[in-house]
Amino acid sequence: MLGGIEAGGTKFICAVADRTDGPLEKCVIPTTSPDETLKAVREFFRGHGVLDALGIASFGPVDIDPSSPQFGEMLKTPKPGWTGVSYLDAFEGLDCPIDLDTDVNGAGLAEWRHGAGQGCRTLAYVTVGTGIGTGVLRDGQSLNGAGHYEMGHIRPVRDGERDPFEGACPFHGDCLEGLASGPAIKARWGMGLNEMADPGPAIELIGGYLAQLALTLTLTHRPDRILFGGGVMKTPGLIDVIREQMESLLAGYVSIPSVRDYIAAPSLGDDAGITGALCLAASVLPGAEAGPRHAGK
Amino acid sequence: MLGGIEAGGTKFICAVADRTDGPLEKCVIPTTSPDETLKAVREFFRGHGVLDALGIASFGPVDIDPSSPQFGEMLKTPKPGWTGVSYLDAFEGLDCPIDLDTDVNGAGLAEWRHGAGQGCRTLAYVTVGTGIGTGVLRDGQSLNGAGHYEMGHIRPVRDGERDPFEGACPFHGDCLEGLASGPAIKARWGMGLNEMADPGPAIELIGGYLAQLALTLTLTHRPDRILFGGGVMKTPGLIDVIREQMESLLAGYVSIPSVRDYIAAPSLGDDAGITGALCLAASVLPGAEAGPRHAGK
Repeated sequence: MLGGIEAGGTKFICAVADRTDGPLEKCVIPTTSPDETLKAVREFFRGHGVLDALGIASFGPVDIDPSSPQFGEMLKTPKPGWTGVSYLDAFEGLDCPIDLDTDVNGAGLAEWRHGAGQGCRTLAYVTVGTGIGTGVLRDGQSLNGAGHYEMGHIRPVRDGERDPFEGACPFHGDCLEGLASGPAIKARWGMGLNEMADPGPAIELIGGYLAQLALTLTLTHRPDRILFGGGVMKTPGLIDVIREQMESLLAGYVSIPSVRDYIAAPSLGDDAGITGALCLAASVLPGAEAGPRHAGK
Repeated sequence: MLGGIEAGGTKFICAVADRTDGPLEKCVIPTTSPDETLKAVREFFRGHGVLDALGIASFGPVDIDPSSPQFGEMLKTPKPGWTGVSYLDAFEGLDCPIDLDTDVNGAGLAEWRHGAGQGCRTLAYVTVGTGIGTGVLRDGQSLNGAGHYEMGHIRPVRDGERDPFEGACPFHGDCLEGLASGPAIKARWGMGLNEMADPGPAIELIGGYLAQLALTLTLTHRPDRILFGGGVMKTPGLIDVIREQMESLLAGYVSIPSVRDYIAAPSLGDDAGITGALCLAASVLPGAEAGPRHAGK
């Protein structure tokens, strides 16, 4: 039996399943204090018998380097009480191998294994919602350096005459997250893209920033495909603007597949996160092939 | 005996050595037609006995994916006659294992093994000269996606009032290479930074663009260190401007080591390229530990 946790800032989704793509049984636990939340999670799993492995796809920042002494710990987070919390300690009593990655890397892994990222050696996954998160997988292993990637804070070109909004990021002002995340859109226009009577110009603007992210991703990681998911991406037409503007910015410099294949929507919908957590569990099942990310373990 | 080739657009440096950090015997061959150049290279190696392995650090674009059917081929290049040339075919007669990577990845590997990148799990290497090239190594293996990285073509923020120069890149105009490479500097001011009577303002401007590259590298790859080499970086004071402005742009968002350690100069000087080629040779010696890059071989 595989256990999975999609750990978010507002809720924890827990599931058990026999296979990563099989039917799953799940429950949703609100994120309150670590003690209360993690106790409820443990009780859910204990009620479902013995786990063979547990996978966690967590909100960040979190230490996801298996060779680090802090592997599995929440890093400095504004979420009260969560800084320093260790998932490995919390679930030690379940007595099974545990793997952990960021929520966005987890969702990317799920899409790579079962969804719109199948067949890609290098897959990039972008989520545009409360924040802008990005993960890159190589052969199904998330890539990371001294920590997980933080591409939402890249600084795009902003034309101050066209977009005088100076950005909502408390650190950087007009970084991508400060200009194109859900909260940035609300701060600029007082409403979401889906609530506008004539959203066309706003979609062009936001799509242009996200196209710059797609360009930077292309030049820095050379993915085979970039998936754009998250709440903001539910806006009809937005992905087409990203495709058009990205192609125009790239100007043919490196060869990419057809832009409709290259920039695509995820296919697993709201289940990507929890499916990713189950895929992480499967990766540490006894006998699973260890990938490069675990080489140092 | 290890053989190494640093293959450039104007010259090929060839060397033989017993060790990657040992004394080497080398020769320089001008880059003319592929037939003529590669014949001279073969003759150099044949004059030095039997090679155990050959490493090539080449100018690009070149296919460096060992699992690709085109591994070792020059891709579409403006260099007359070189498109489609296969290094593997050219050196088949030397009858030894061959590894190949880009010149910048090769130089990064040399710095990782013997120079200023020692001890870094994730090392970024930037060269600022005729172009702007960037490589990233993880545990001494170069990272690549569908091709090698092309970070010189990232689009930085440019203040048109401060810098009305619209850029020299034939593809993108004001991408990093179009604004901050050696030819871009010459095109803007008619001279190099070292030739100016009062280079201060120019160094501030160019350093600001390179600081944006350092920021983007930090957010997209989370390296432990970024080395800045190449002809333009010989300008006194330039690296300090990059350090200052990068730290200011990052605004404490992710933790990095002290900026003097984080953004540093390479230490192998002009030997980095050929040393990298020898390191590539050592990586395919019979019995060498195969890294992730060669997993598909």
